[in-house]
Amino acid sequence: MRLAPLLLALAIALPAAAAQPTQISDAALATAAQLRETALKDDTGWKVTESLTTEVGPRLAGSEADARAVAWAKAKFEQLGFDKVWTEPVTFPKWERRSEHAQVLGPHSQALVLTALGGSPAGTVEGQVVRFANLDSLAKAAPGSLDGKIAFIDYRMARAQDGHGYGMGSRVRGAGPSAAIRAGAAAYLMRSAGTDNHRVAHTGITRFDEGLAPIPSAALSNPDADQLARLLALDPSTRVRVALDCGWNGEYTSQNVIGEITGSSRPDEIVLIGGHLDSWDAGTGAIDDAAGIGISMAAAKLIGDLPRHPARTIRVVAFANEEQGLHGGFAYAEAHGAELARHAIVSESDFGAGRIYAFDAGNIADDARDAVAKIAAALKPLGIEWTPGQGSPESDVGPFAGAGAAWGWLGHDGSEYFDLHHTADDTLDKIDPQALAQNVAAYAVFTYLAAQADGGFGSSPEQAGSRRRGLGR
Amino acid sequence: MRLAPLLLALAIALPAAAAQPTQISDAALATAAQLRETALKDDTGWKVTESLTTEVGPRLAGSEADARAVAWAKAKFEQLGFDKVWTEPVTFPKWERRSEHAQVLGPHSQALVLTALGGSPAGTVEGQVVRFANLDSLAKAAPGSLDGKIAFIDYRMARAQDGHGYGMGSRVRGAGPSAAIRAGAAAYLMRSAGTDNHRVAHTGITRFDEGLAPIPSAALSNPDADQLARLLALDPSTRVRVALDCGWNGEYTSQNVIGEITGSSRPDEIVLIGGHLDSWDAGTGAIDDAAGIGISMAAAKLIGDLPRHPARTIRVVAFANEEQGLHGGFAYAEAHGAELARHAIVSESDFGAGRIYAFDAGNIADDARDAVAKIAAALKPLGIEWTPGQGSPESDVGPFAGAGAAWGWLGHDGSEYFDLHHTADDTLDKIDPQALAQNVAAYAVFTYLAAQADGGFGSSPEQAGSRRRGLGR
Repeated sequence: MRLAPLLLALAIALPAAAAQPTQISDAALATAAQLRETALKDDTGWKVTESLTTEVGPRLAGSEADARAVAWAKAKFEQLGFDKVWTEPVTFPKWERRSEHAQVLGPHSQALVLTALGGSPAGTVEGQVVRFANLDSLAKAAPGSLDGKIAFIDYRMARAQDGHGYGMGSRVRGAGPSAAIRAGAAAYLMRSAGTDNHRVAHTGITRFDEGLAPIPSAALSNPDADQLARLLALDPSTRVRVALDCGWNGEYTSQNVIGEITGSSRPDEIVLIGGHLDSWDAGTGAIDDAAGIGISMAAAKLIGDLPRHPARTIRVVAFANEEQGLHGGFAYAEAHGAELARHAIVSESDFGAGRIYAFDAGNIADDARDAVAKIAAALKPLGIEWTPGQGSPESDVGPFAGAGAAWGWLGHDGSEYFDLHHTADDTLDKIDPQALAQNVAAYAVFTYLAAQADGGFGSSPEQAGSRRRGLGR
Repeated sequence: MRLAPLLLALAIALPAAAAQPTQISDAALATAAQLRETALKDDTGWKVTESLTTEVGPRLAGSEADARAVAWAKAKFEQLGFDKVWTEPVTFPKWERRSEHAQVLGPHSQALVLTALGGSPAGTVEGQVVRFANLDSLAKAAPGSLDGKIAFIDYRMARAQDGHGYGMGSRVRGAGPSAAIRAGAAAYLMRSAGTDNHRVAHTGITRFDEGLAPIPSAALSNPDADQLARLLALDPSTRVRVALDCGWNGEYTSQNVIGEITGSSRPDEIVLIGGHLDSWDAGTGAIDDAAGIGISMAAAKLIGDLPRHPARTIRVVAFANEEQGLHGGFAYAEAHGAELARHAIVSESDFGAGRIYAFDAGNIADDARDAVAKIAAALKPLGIEWTPGQGSPESDVGPFAGAGAAWGWLGHDGSEYFDLHHTADDTLDKIDPQALAQNVAAYAVFTYLAAQADGGFGSSPEQAGSRRRGLGR
């Protein structure tokens, strides 16, 4: 919605894609193959990921650590020898988490592990818990039927390599609170959108529909959701106290931090890769998304170390505040919309550090399809299949892809991603250094070939409207 | 030490073992084989374990939930149809946990997940952290060398089927604080004695040597110990704030809760099995030790359901406060020392709910060895090997075994036990119902055959001094 005027301006200002088919030379493929082997043995990605998760640690958007993360990213780009490093402001409402507790009341008194959803207001509610198996059943609850009660959606998300179980999992998080309010509930609980069975709850942003008065909203860890469900089966009148101290508190201006490896012959054209710099606060944001920062910084750094830079500029963006609504991605799209067609292709890594198993691209012009096929072939030795129609632009490049930028997708195996996502357990030890090196190799190959290709991929405001993934990925 | 006068009294009072070799009849073996098959299909053990972990939940010795657990156990014995149910008082000092926090100070500011060790005093300490690779290196630190600092033992315990890595792991917990005090430390941190990589720290009892002023003592989760070690490698002057609110607070009297299935022909002779009723406070004590309660109650209940009870009485003891020093076990040994020789054999299940893979027995008279071999043979169809010399009496039956009671050991596979032990993650979902049924089957077979054997196993104060496992198992 907010992009519409921008798109109109772009549609008038920019030329259509070139008529000449896009070429990738044998020399470029040979360099990419070398790069792939170098990356598999290189530990830059690991070191960057280790550095961010250790030295900054958790870095909730708008927190004291947000500023430290920005300073860290600038310094890291400089240490790695990027040609240009700068920041661009990203302003957003600031949400704070101060404390969170829950307790079963009465004869089975015991604490429950939960975490406030991002965007939840503060509040202490004691009430009878009413369990719903899924979002639909809560959405059908009659207005007033939950007056003064606590709505609890006990939906268990499914494990999948491509993470598709998160589709419903994140809807339960995003739409559940408003459905609860409509039925009169005083607080909202959900089973975490996660596939693990540890006592670490999964946070994530939620929202409240306009006109509704927000209620305290939180996610129980999976074992705690099991426990609450058992207690409700024993006694449907089971009461719980939910006490959250959290909420919105003014605005904050963070930064997208950007580093470039300057192109050797077409420096004004850009291949954009990146990750997001912010994390949720309980873990150290290793898989979400220090890994994406490490992968993209390392891939670009290895390309920068080549005897000759590729034709185009490699731009790595460490996006601000992805978690609370793609703020960095929207800010980038607004600031750079006029240059959309100069972005040959864009790709973010924001799905952990599992081995990349699939490749796809979108908003691709017909005359660039052979070039995409060549990139796919160059990725194949890494165990990556070309899976047309399976991918999508990840998180912060979504707004730009939605505005028409060609996008690449390097799909991480997400089978274990939602064991850790948005929890205290998202820490460095969960990353396999060999898988991370494979990730860097894949990004290096993709990025180099896209940057060295003779001809574009189809980025154009005419492509506007391609599908995007939701918020809080 | 406290058992010495008791042992002396027993040595005088009790007769030697019978001269006739102990017999197990073919009819008893046939009944045991039926019982084994029945138990494998029965869910009593699961239901008892579910009930205790759900309805009582965490039950720290001396807490409000301790009393609820005692009431629960009495009611459960009665529901299950035990012939006699009673309680026996167990008095111990009460330790309370109120809050616990840790924070890295300075440029890498971030929270660390830790948990106070049982017995730790309260206190807030800010200090430079000094890392030691193991207990030995801290024990060698010069007096005064850690003045005002925080000692940190970064020892990682090893995973093993028989859990032997916990030997050193628990020594780091038990002896580390005193070693730290001797070197002048103001607080003590250790890497959790655990084999997982989750952000849940492993608590457990510690102690302070006489004459030393206790210091705040806590365990970091494994990922947090990793993080602190990395931060110290970056900057050896790294400072941390440790803030614990916990400590001893008077005395409490809990109860050993006892249920019996009365023997059909020698009701005054006893086969004792059990588990401990208390748990640490962060989890719901599923593997430690609701499972032991469920296994022993279910095994005895299934024996009680037989058309004819075995000769001897089956006594199931739900021991009070094992975690803080085998208080229930010592109280039982003191209260029942004079009847030691009437206890044919004793066995506690306090090592989780992994499949039982090994069997052993101790304090066995020579003329009972064939009977033990017959029990071993009856356990073999459950995948259980007879491993002479590999077992030991578990936790609360240790004092009684130390006083000369014959003991049996049914060894659970502990490969994953220390992923969960003494953490918030010790919850019902971690138990495999099939493995638990196998555990019940093993206990039912062992208990029935011991109770039906013609002749004893060798319990006698003359056996006093057999090896025991340490505290806080």
